Amino acid sequence: MLWNEDQFIDTIAQQFSVQKPLIGIGDDCAVIPRDDKTAWLITTDALVEGVHFLKEQIKASDLGFKTIAVNVSDIAAMGGSPQYAFLSIAIPKTTDTSWAHLFIEGIKEACLKWNIILLGGDTVGSKRDIFINLTLIGAAAQNHIKYRHQAQTGDVICINGYLGNSGGGFKALQNNLPLTGDIEHLIQSHFRPQPSPEQGQWLASQSHVHAMMDISDGLDCDLKRLLKQSKKGAVIETLSIPLSKSLENVSSEQGWDALEFALVGGEDYCLLFTVSSKDYDAIQCAFQDQFHNPLFAIGYVTDHNNDLIYHKKSEVIHIHYETYKHF
Amino acid sequence: MLWNEDQFIDTIAQQFSVQKPLIGIGDDCAVIPRDDKTAWLITTDALVEGVHFLKEQIKASDLGFKTIAVNVSDIAAMGGSPQYAFLSIAIPKTTDTSWAHLFIEGIKEACLKWNIILLGGDTVGSKRDIFINLTLIGAAAQNHIKYRHQAQTGDVICINGYLGNSGGGFKALQNNLPLTGDIEHLIQSHFRPQPSPEQGQWLASQSHVHAMMDISDGLDCDLKRLLKQSKKGAVIETLSIPLSKSLENVSSEQGWDALEFALVGGEDYCLLFTVSSKDYDAIQCAFQDQFHNPLFAIGYVTDHNNDLIYHKKSEVIHIHYETYKHF
Repeated sequence: MLWNEDQFIDTIAQQFSVQKPLIGIGDDCAVIPRDDKTAWLITTDALVEGVHFLKEQIKASDLGFKTIAVNVSDIAAMGGSPQYAFLSIAIPKTTDTSWAHLFIEGIKEACLKWNIILLGGDTVGSKRDIFINLTLIGAAAQNHIKYRHQAQTGDVICINGYLGNSGGGFKALQNNLPLTGDIEHLIQSHFRPQPSPEQGQWLASQSHVHAMMDISDGLDCDLKRLLKQSKKGAVIETLSIPLSKSLENVSSEQGWDALEFALVGGEDYCLLFTVSSKDYDAIQCAFQDQFHNPLFAIGYVTDHNNDLIYHKKSEVIHIHYETYKHF
Repeated sequence: MLWNEDQFIDTIAQQFSVQKPLIGIGDDCAVIPRDDKTAWLITTDALVEGVHFLKEQIKASDLGFKTIAVNVSDIAAMGGSPQYAFLSIAIPKTTDTSWAHLFIEGIKEACLKWNIILLGGDTVGSKRDIFINLTLIGAAAQNHIKYRHQAQTGDVICINGYLGNSGGGFKALQNNLPLTGDIEHLIQSHFRPQPSPEQGQWLASQSHVHAMMDISDGLDCDLKRLLKQSKKGAVIETLSIPLSKSLENVSSEQGWDALEFALVGGEDYCLLFTVSSKDYDAIQCAFQDQFHNPLFAIGYVTDHNNDLIYHKKSEVIHIHYETYKHF
């Protein structure tokens, strides 16, 4: 029988079920108490050539930047500030030295952007493909950390950015579309995600923000994870999902369904969170004042365990998009 | 120009030289202060199929065990106790599910042995080769942590185990030697390293133990690293280097030079440390009482920066072994 990723994760969970779990299992980061008031948040992500990226498609510097960014997104999702990174990279001996240098420039650019110290790692040869692993350690106030299991019935479901740009950019790359300004914008979203730990920390400091996570595999998949942890359901108004002008333009030109990218495109790396409905307006205004970015309310939490319903103009619609696949 | 591992590490060091370094750079682990008295030790190691192991040669459970063990060795080398592990693994879709299960069994066995909690990680597909990365976090008393730079002139150079078994086992595997008891012993040393954090912590608690590290790439290579950090030299009496009966027997049968395995075979995962000469006898006795294992004094530290001299019966000998290479 061939190996299967989901079953394998279940096996690991079973094998280690005897261990007393710390908080944070099933969330974007593991949480280790640091002192009475603060905790470490720890996340790790692997990127594999031919699975998560194509070397001939993404610039080495973009890949370095993205390696840091996707982990920063996990730290932001629980309300932490990124601090220390550990980079492991396996590179075939046939790789050009300039590739490796550009990769490290991208790592450095992202570390400077988010005030991260590269504290260690491992550099090894690889037989054929490039493998990258980053472990990122962040810090957070213990009483501010947000988890996936805290959504409450009636909460407004919010996001802090446009969805589907990265998925659209990926599709444009696959289809080798000519580079217009709109398409470049989408591709840039795919190559250079811009998670915001500042926004994550601000949201985490609000007691009326309940559950939070980042969107890495697409709203549909990630919201289901949040609902499962919270034992809740949700109604999403698809017309409220924010789409960028670029995605709308390109989708219209190419005959794409922009909603598909927004729901299953993945790699948006923005924040998905729930807010008590009576406090939503105040939080939305304060957020706008603080960051000059809007929040988007896209639905609400229901009592129906694991039941995710999509509306279009308040009418139920059925969505059958396939989950995002890499190469 | 093709990529080169050592040059690449230099590039990373240059790129990040603007960052204020924390202690522990150039040591087996990074050190992050935890509170006034304790610190976290963090290490990460990558293992790549076809470079660090052959899937058809090592059992999946042994590979899992070794993944944990090599990182435990780094924590032991600075005097810490291992605590939390983060495992990333990339596996081709064509891998049999039983392989993945056995691998996790080996991980679990090692975690139970060393009281490690597997706290997170990433499980992804890979196009062709298996890629494993482990980040291990340990804890130590700040005033007990040992570094590589603390060797003092006149110190006795010590190790806590036999050298060369793993290298001999690797050679036996490469040459497909028939499995005698001695050869099985060597191969077991290669597949299942047995670092001892208890011995590392005990040694670290001794103020007369000065510098410490683990031997992962062979005594020759690793002692040079310690001397470089300490700006010292050393004289090693090769006849004092402890060799196991198994290695001596197999070497004699096969016409191997056992000393070669001891100096450049690598993957011994025992501790290399220096002790002030006047305190060596007391520490040696106390260690023997505590662990029922001997310590081995193999030479002494000199004032001659970076100058490593080998003796045989106090006569200088010149050693020209090639550095250990994987596949």
